[in-house]
Amino acid sequence: MNHDRPFRTLSSRVAWACPWYQVRQDVIRLPDGSEGIYNVVEHPGAVWIVPVTAEGEVVLLYHYRYTVDDWCWEVPAGGLKAGQLPDEAARAELAEEIGGEAAEWRYIGPFYGSNGISNELGHIYLARGVTLGQPHHEAAEVIEIHRVPVAEALRMAQANEISDGPSALALLLCAPYLQGDGA
Amino acid sequence: MNHDRPFRTLSSRVAWACPWYQVRQDVIRLPDGSEGIYNVVEHPGAVWIVPVTAEGEVVLLYHYRYTVDDWCWEVPAGGLKAGQLPDEAARAELAEEIGGEAAEWRYIGPFYGSNGISNELGHIYLARGVTLGQPHHEAAEVIEIHRVPVAEALRMAQANEISDGPSALALLLCAPYLQGDGA
Repeated sequence: MNHDRPFRTLSSRVAWACPWYQVRQDVIRLPDGSEGIYNVVEHPGAVWIVPVTAEGEVVLLYHYRYTVDDWCWEVPAGGLKAGQLPDEAARAELAEEIGGEAAEWRYIGPFYGSNGISNELGHIYLARGVTLGQPHHEAAEVIEIHRVPVAEALRMAQANEISDGPSALALLLCAPYLQGDGA
Repeated sequence: MNHDRPFRTLSSRVAWACPWYQVRQDVIRLPDGSEGIYNVVEHPGAVWIVPVTAEGEVVLLYHYRYTVDDWCWEVPAGGLKAGQLPDEAARAELAEEIGGEAAEWRYIGPFYGSNGISNELGHIYLARGVTLGQPHHEAAEVIEIHRVPVAEALRMAQANEISDGPSALALLLCAPYLQGDGA
């Protein structure tokens, strides 16, 4: 199969917007020649950080999420702000969510979070030698901070106890790098 | 910390809608007493299926995604249609995307796909003894079907070569069940 771009964009407009994302509505030409509409949730991208302390613990969050009305196990994460690079966002989120600083950063890689409806590109980081300080949570962030041994955090991810999918993926992708940390 | 629901919903309206999802805009009372707005992308939920043949191959898709203008490695997946249960959707997607039927189904578990902005609940399935037939792709689905040895599919997931995050998570969560299939 030809791996060129199979769809042609005929027109594009913003159908709805809020400060965090917007919906772009495109009229497209499909490969069979017909026209269709594709709505794309335009998202600035986001970062997920697996923070590991010098004591061999992963810092996990237990985070109330209004979207799903549920408390979720997660790693620190957040959307990119305007003009922010993923590396900058990762450092900022670690500081905001757990008051954290890391001695060593490793970029694990990117992933598409929801490519059926959104252009969101997530970025996964491993942060080691993390020290915890005073977090700076916003009013809408209701978050508990937990320190969990590396092996237990990886067990939770493999057992699907980390309900935030991207956080589970981040933990599992970091596993090969955590052999010296008690994985 | 009290793990009751920390936010109160004061009002709720549909801000934007399309046939596949909608944006609900709620006015909420935050734990500090202030009011805020929370936009929730309301999604019907979706399924991801890891299909394994009797020959020990995973059936992967190489799928052009308009949202990200990219070809993505994925497993068969799709959104729930109105009134459809996840089990039914999993069987329907396997049939539609690869013309597949499975001898054995295992439910691996649920995950939140994007809990910062959406209520989407994904469901992961392992389908074994899969036979391939004639797929029924829609005009907007531009998909190649590939058969990859189980060990190679798991290597791709662990190496972050499966660009669709939920598909990579699905493969990694299925790994412990694939020891007898060449994992």
